[in-house]
Amino acid sequence: MRTENDTLGSREIEDDHYYGIQTQRALENFSISGITIDKIPSYIDSLLLIKKSAAIANHRIGKISNEQVLAISQAADEFLTTPQAQQFPLDIYQGGGGTSTNMNVNEVLANRANEILTGKKGYDVVHPNTHINMCQSTNDVIPAAMKMSIYKILGELEYALSSFVEILGNKVEEFTDIVKIGRTCLQDALPLTLGQQFSGYCSAFERSVLQINNVRRHCLELPMGATAIGTEFGTYPGYKDAFYHALHENTGINFTPEKNFFDALQNADFWITTSAVLKSTANILNKLASDLRLMASGPRAGLAEITLPAVQPGSSIMPGKINPVIPEMAIQVYFRILGNDLSITRACEGELELNVWESLILNCISESCRLLTECLPLFSEKCIKNLIANRERCAEDAGSSLALSTVIATIFDYKIASEVARKAETEGKSIYQIVVESGLLSTEKASQLLEPSVLTCPELFNELYK
Amino acid sequence: MRTENDTLGSREIEDDHYYGIQTQRALENFSISGITIDKIPSYIDSLLLIKKSAAIANHRIGKISNEQVLAISQAADEFLTTPQAQQFPLDIYQGGGGTSTNMNVNEVLANRANEILTGKKGYDVVHPNTHINMCQSTNDVIPAAMKMSIYKILGELEYALSSFVEILGNKVEEFTDIVKIGRTCLQDALPLTLGQQFSGYCSAFERSVLQINNVRRHCLELPMGATAIGTEFGTYPGYKDAFYHALHENTGINFTPEKNFFDALQNADFWITTSAVLKSTANILNKLASDLRLMASGPRAGLAEITLPAVQPGSSIMPGKINPVIPEMAIQVYFRILGNDLSITRACEGELELNVWESLILNCISESCRLLTECLPLFSEKCIKNLIANRERCAEDAGSSLALSTVIATIFDYKIASEVARKAETEGKSIYQIVVESGLLSTEKASQLLEPSVLTCPELFNELYK
Amino acid sequence: MRTENDTLGSREIEDDHYYGIQTQRALENFSISGITIDKIPSYIDSLLLIKKSAAIANHRIGKISNEQVLAISQAADEFLTTPQAQQFPLDIYQGGGGTSTNMNVNEVLANRANEILTGKKGYDVVHPNTHINMCQSTNDVIPAAMKMSIYKILGELEYALSSFVEILGNKVEEFTDIVKIGRTCLQDALPLTLGQQFSGYCSAFERSVLQINNVRRHCLELPMGATAIGTEFGTYPGYKDAFYHALHENTGINFTPEKNFFDALQNADFWITTSAVLKSTANILNKLASDLRLMASGPRAGLAEITLPAVQPGSSIMPGKINPVIPEMAIQVYFRILGNDLSITRACEGELELNVWESLILNCISESCRLLTECLPLFSEKCIKNLIANRERCAEDAGSSLALSTVIATIFDYKIASEVARKAETEGKSIYQIVVESGLLSTEKASQLLEPSVLTCPELFNELYK
Amino acid sequence: MRTENDTLGSREIEDDHYYGIQTQRALENFSISGITIDKIPSYIDSLLLIKKSAAIANHRIGKISNEQVLAISQAADEFLTTPQAQQFPLDIYQGGGGTSTNMNVNEVLANRANEILTGKKGYDVVHPNTHINMCQSTNDVIPAAMKMSIYKILGELEYALSSFVEILGNKVEEFTDIVKIGRTCLQDALPLTLGQQFSGYCSAFERSVLQINNVRRHCLELPMGATAIGTEFGTYPGYKDAFYHALHENTGINFTPEKNFFDALQNADFWITTSAVLKSTANILNKLASDLRLMASGPRAGLAEITLPAVQPGSSIMPGKINPVIPEMAIQVYFRILGNDLSITRACEGELELNVWESLILNCISESCRLLTECLPLFSEKCIKNLIANRERCAEDAGSSLALSTVIATIFDYKIASEVARKAETEGKSIYQIVVESGLLSTEKASQLLEPSVLTCPELFNELYK
Repeated sequence: MRTENDTLGSREIEDDHYYGIQTQRALENFSISGITIDKIPSYIDSLLLIKKSAAIANHRIGKISNEQVLAISQAADEFLTTPQAQQFPLDIYQGGGGTSTNMNVNEVLANRANEILTGKKGYDVVHPNTHINMCQSTNDVIPAAMKMSIYKILGELEYALSSFVEILGNKVEEFTDIVKIGRTCLQDALPLTLGQQFSGYCSAFERSVLQINNVRRHCLELPMGATAIGTEFGTYPGYKDAFYHALHENTGINFTPEKNFFDALQNADFWITTSAVLKSTANILNKLASDLRLMASGPRAGLAEITLPAVQPGSSIMPGKINPVIPEMAIQVYFRILGNDLSITRACEGELELNVWESLILNCISESCRLLTECLPLFSEKCIKNLIANRERCAEDAGSSLALSTVIATIFDYKIASEVARKAETEGKSIYQIVVESGLLSTEKASQLLEPSVLTCPELFNELYK
Repeated sequence: MRTENDTLGSREIEDDHYYGIQTQRALENFSISGITIDKIPSYIDSLLLIKKSAAIANHRIGKISNEQVLAISQAADEFLTTPQAQQFPLDIYQGGGGTSTNMNVNEVLANRANEILTGKKGYDVVHPNTHINMCQSTNDVIPAAMKMSIYKILGELEYALSSFVEILGNKVEEFTDIVKIGRTCLQDALPLTLGQQFSGYCSAFERSVLQINNVRRHCLELPMGATAIGTEFGTYPGYKDAFYHALHENTGINFTPEKNFFDALQNADFWITTSAVLKSTANILNKLASDLRLMASGPRAGLAEITLPAVQPGSSIMPGKINPVIPEMAIQVYFRILGNDLSITRACEGELELNVWESLILNCISESCRLLTECLPLFSEKCIKNLIANRERCAEDAGSSLALSTVIATIFDYKIASEVARKAETEGKSIYQIVVESGLLSTEKASQLLEPSVLTCPELFNELYK
Repeated sequence: MRTENDTLGSREIEDDHYYGIQTQRALENFSISGITIDKIPSYIDSLLLIKKSAAIANHRIGKISNEQVLAISQAADEFLTTPQAQQFPLDIYQGGGGTSTNMNVNEVLANRANEILTGKKGYDVVHPNTHINMCQSTNDVIPAAMKMSIYKILGELEYALSSFVEILGNKVEEFTDIVKIGRTCLQDALPLTLGQQFSGYCSAFERSVLQINNVRRHCLELPMGATAIGTEFGTYPGYKDAFYHALHENTGINFTPEKNFFDALQNADFWITTSAVLKSTANILNKLASDLRLMASGPRAGLAEITLPAVQPGSSIMPGKINPVIPEMAIQVYFRILGNDLSITRACEGELELNVWESLILNCISESCRLLTECLPLFSEKCIKNLIANRERCAEDAGSSLALSTVIATIFDYKIASEVARKAETEGKSIYQIVVESGLLSTEKASQLLEPSVLTCPELFNELYK
Repeated sequence: MRTENDTLGSREIEDDHYYGIQTQRALENFSISGITIDKIPSYIDSLLLIKKSAAIANHRIGKISNEQVLAISQAADEFLTTPQAQQFPLDIYQGGGGTSTNMNVNEVLANRANEILTGKKGYDVVHPNTHINMCQSTNDVIPAAMKMSIYKILGELEYALSSFVEILGNKVEEFTDIVKIGRTCLQDALPLTLGQQFSGYCSAFERSVLQINNVRRHCLELPMGATAIGTEFGTYPGYKDAFYHALHENTGINFTPEKNFFDALQNADFWITTSAVLKSTANILNKLASDLRLMASGPRAGLAEITLPAVQPGSSIMPGKINPVIPEMAIQVYFRILGNDLSITRACEGELELNVWESLILNCISESCRLLTECLPLFSEKCIKNLIANRERCAEDAGSSLALSTVIATIFDYKIASEVARKAETEGKSIYQIVVESGLLSTEKASQLLEPSVLTCPELFNELYK
């Protein structure tokens, strides 16, 4: 055990902990959720990269020594290369806008740097505030680390989404000649192909990819340099440029300073925008999943248009039952993301010079991303890829629809078509039967023009009709 | 035109307006939504009843004169008997916690009372603050009027819900012998009767009635007497008792003072509780409506278990289409109530001595109530009452279910039953067929024990089985 | 009275109504909210423009006659020029995805066109479905009219926001030399200028303008031509191009067809995106309003940094009280928009070929827009424009802050600075006093470097310091 | 490794796992969130207690043998006594309504029971479906286990809340003679005591305790016996009574069957009600925390009425800063519970015979409970208990308020009082000064009647005044 002091007193710390008294205090104050900051590894990594880059910048402008920067860099690299969760044990539900997290990283690096330089932990040569946190404030470091972290996380999501789009695109091809009934208000409508239907899903997810990419680019603008309230007070001349230069060297990514640092610290609405994209992605995922459940309902007393791959027995009491468990997992992902969006929105209501709820925002955004990123490959592998269309059932349903009367409205008028539909309904016959029986069209013409596949392609219909 | 003055200056008011300068200022400050306080008539009535009762109380404790109380009472009665919307023109989106609304009522009554007593408007004999608002503050008057108003509105909802329960109860009876397939995860499961299914809806709405009744009773506790911040400062000796006595005389309802006035003004969580009941009612309404849509899907390519009454043609392009428009109206009511619940929750976050967002809360709660109260009778009249079951389709689907294999699991074991289900599925046969073919049960026993109606009643099954 | 018939029966309609039997049925089925479609005038206008453009297109491709197109165009122009709310009386809470609204417009135009051509109402020459709705479906018309309507409404909001930004920009200039204390976690922090603080608000609203503009551009893509389920079935050759051409002629705006019509009808996530922008705008408006309330708290026992213009007396019981009523109105606008965002999100969960909840979405989006568009000019006129800074109070508070110890940390180190801060706190002195007393800096240097205005500008500080 | 088979194929399972093939499949299908069912230990315990009780019941009605029931009971007791997280590794995001969780428990108990009886794992003597799941379905077991689990969890929360109320009650006593200014709309209002203010918080949390207790009692009604869809099919004669009897023996708690099993499986609105209570509790916690932050703002340039205990240094850059970190933790708890409430509400939208989203509901409810239960003791220990009032500052602010003019309105009238307030404001004097200068009251009377402490107690005022 070693003793560390601060203005409020002292604490005994186990000597193998690199974190110090402020982390220890935060552990005593905040352990409520079981969710700790190290659960978001890219967040810790981003903090370490910021600290390392700041040290390099401060060295270049002559504010810290050669040995200090080398020790700090080595320390940061060690934790980057070999993540040590137990050194970052803080709960995500912190008060104080992330000061504890920032100090956790400052202490870990300071103790390790001192150890490198002096053989023992301590803050004599490298001090957590004076050196590691030099030219920085929690208030620029934490939101910057969030953006860097989410930049990485969104990149993974973008990749997962793109792969999902590809799988959907394959089904569009595969289902190009499966003709089925369309349904609006859950009532029988005109026919379309299953490929056309899937092209709608595909197009929606392509939009998501673009949106994710767009918010992701905004994560490249960081508040680093703003310090406590946006004035940049506490930075030395040359620091800001040197910092962004060093950060680029360390990450290979072109991060730039935000245009208005006051805005950057005051307002968190960017996370509302980000969360909205996640919510909208989850919303279309939910629709796809719900539609698959509907279309696969049955197997006998449902729509039974498609069959989802059986991935597990469905019931502990009813033998032979198979449930659409993968879509149901995806639907629940949507429900959680809905809730996260609300928590994020509420947390984005900041106050005066700073939004202090950012660790909750980070928690919710990263959870939403994770759920999507993990769910999508399972969804495509275990559900979409091997789902099959029940071609006969689809064809039969498409042919039975009273909405085929629309053909008659198109050729004759709405009134005559209504009469045909009414008759078909009352007599329990198909539109084709009534049209032929009533002499409206010849058998041949009726066969051509009421063929569902023809109705999925108006060019073809117009060709046949004219 | 007449001129009215206050500490900030003066305003010209059209002389036929009973409201005065403070109302005029509020009109200039707040007209944004088009939703005015008079759209909630019970709110205006409650305010008038409070003012009348306060005047009577203040007269009884000797603080206002005989002629004053008579004029104020007459004025209040006039506006109660003949509502005059144009005298209460304020937008619901007011700042200031409802001071404008309170002053609107104070001014209207003062001007009318002066007119009664002196032949012209003005505040000489009866002053809006000194006399009409005597012993009161906006801060006790507004939340009290809200509770009185919601008490009335919830009474109407409770009635509508009770009637709805009755209609559902009738269908439980009517559908007692319609056997249909149950579905879990949208997949074919064991059979039940449509009556059993409707008994579930009925039971849920009965719970809603109890919950509405319960929150309604809490509306009987009012903050009247608390004045500005809960200390009761500004009330004269004897006022509080006299007020509640007079209010009882004027309303016939036993309103009582809240137990802790500081709590009553500080905290608005009661409205979260109230809104939760509305949301939960709307949630089960949404489920009922969604289930009806599903069960009525078709008419040919859907579940088609029931047929909803046709209340309007369904499509401008597809002749003969009929949509489940009434359930869809109800579903949208749910969506709006969801949103209102969030607005209410956020508005219930008050601050220090007072929650100042109460007019928004009132707006949202009363809208949610109205939507339910108006929707329910239409739903029962135009959808539930005349919906019919498609008995044959129901029976056929129930008989086809692979989940009838549960009978085999119950009689033999899960493994044998799984084999039966697998065979039925692969060979496209019914469980009955497989069971008989494989010799597991005699034709007679199988007919008895696999009859879906028997499975809806385990007593009967156990009787036949033993 | 005249009688109109449809497949379900007949209805008597008052003869001065241009709407017909389907509108009448919808009135019977849906009147629950008191909010009717004509409350969103740009929606009715958009529907009329679509119908007129479709008629012109259908005439150009030879499907309707000269006299028909002239009569339909004249009818549409009449209702565009002289809005007639009573002809569009339908509740916004419709089932059926807006079929009633579409038929309402079809009927009104058909009856008026017949009247023009024949002297009496009726559908003989121009039929609501056959002619007015030709090549269209509710399912492309309604979402297209929504987008056209929201395009217009968002334009008004964009204008209001731009004006708001301008007013904020003026305050940035005006407050450029007011030095005040910054606060994070509501605790005294480093100084900044009030102008810097306002530049943060200004920058945030500039972002909103860009976001509004961006979603607005997406409103230019319409599903017109998709008909019932996206296949375009029911359109005649040449119709689509002719329609967009005519729509451009009639509106002067370059509307184009959506890229994938199946997506366009299936998915409504665009409205989540739109609503998110409105929510994010309201969120920063709420922050500004809340900050103003905080900074104006007092007048004596609060922060009292600024004084808001007095726009009305604040209390019915406490004379002299003035409340921040305009910010409070704005805050409630945010609360409602929060709720609307949730209703919209839920309504965007569609199903299969069509999202049928679009009229609720329209209602919520247009309400959110209206509230912002109406609130912003009041906010700038009645609150921002004439709010004044209390320069002395600001200066005094800035000078008293213990966070000025940051200067010592910057010059010496964190440990020494902590000691200074601790001493200042314990002894109730200023940082300046302690620094001078302890001999850390000369009086002259301390006066220069601890001057709050210097700390708002690190270049100046670094100049003085070196 | 051992091999297990089901109707879909087989899986190799590590032999030290008691769980079997269905758990293994679920692991492959669902691992996305990192949150596993064993994170809610009372849930696993409840499932084990249900299984044990069902086994005892089935033995008593003669359906399983002596040796079977003994082995099953022993197995259950072992896992109850020594929790083994690794045996319950399933993700909370499961499709299929919890079938995987139910089967996980069935498999674990079956393998362990077989091991007890035969020395090796396997299902020969005790089968997961046939014996462990006898007379049960996932559809009654899962919601029953949820209610039992939440019953326990809510009990812990109720205890934490009661303790919190006690601590608040102590502060009510302690602060009984601290007179301070009240604030409405953040503007200076009449005085009250800090004890009165705290009595409001106390009263609100007392209401929460009652509400928690009330929903908790509803957790005693279980759907056990309903089986798959509410018909009770699959239960043997006598089972239901025997089950509830055995459950009582095993838990000591009086669980009873729900009144309508169809309702119980169809509708999940009870969780909306439960979540609303958690949300409402969090809402008042948020208000308390926000009020403390406001009142403790400063220490120099804020309200500074109270001082919160310093529990950690507040800033990495500003020495000496102390932040209200404990209230800020509590506020974030509220934000998360807001989001959970929405996820729960959405998940409560079930469908037909069963709500299949119950594991998400459980996850959200239990997280909300945990956050509150863990946060409250930290809040009371580290913030409430040792927060101190700044008596002088409170007194000074109370005396300076222009709202003391209300005294003049009470004694004279509103007009005179307004004039006094206006003068005090313009001349920068106190109400007392103006009243005495203008001769409205004698120095003595003014001292008595304008003494803030007198105004916190109208009885005293009225005594002095008469």
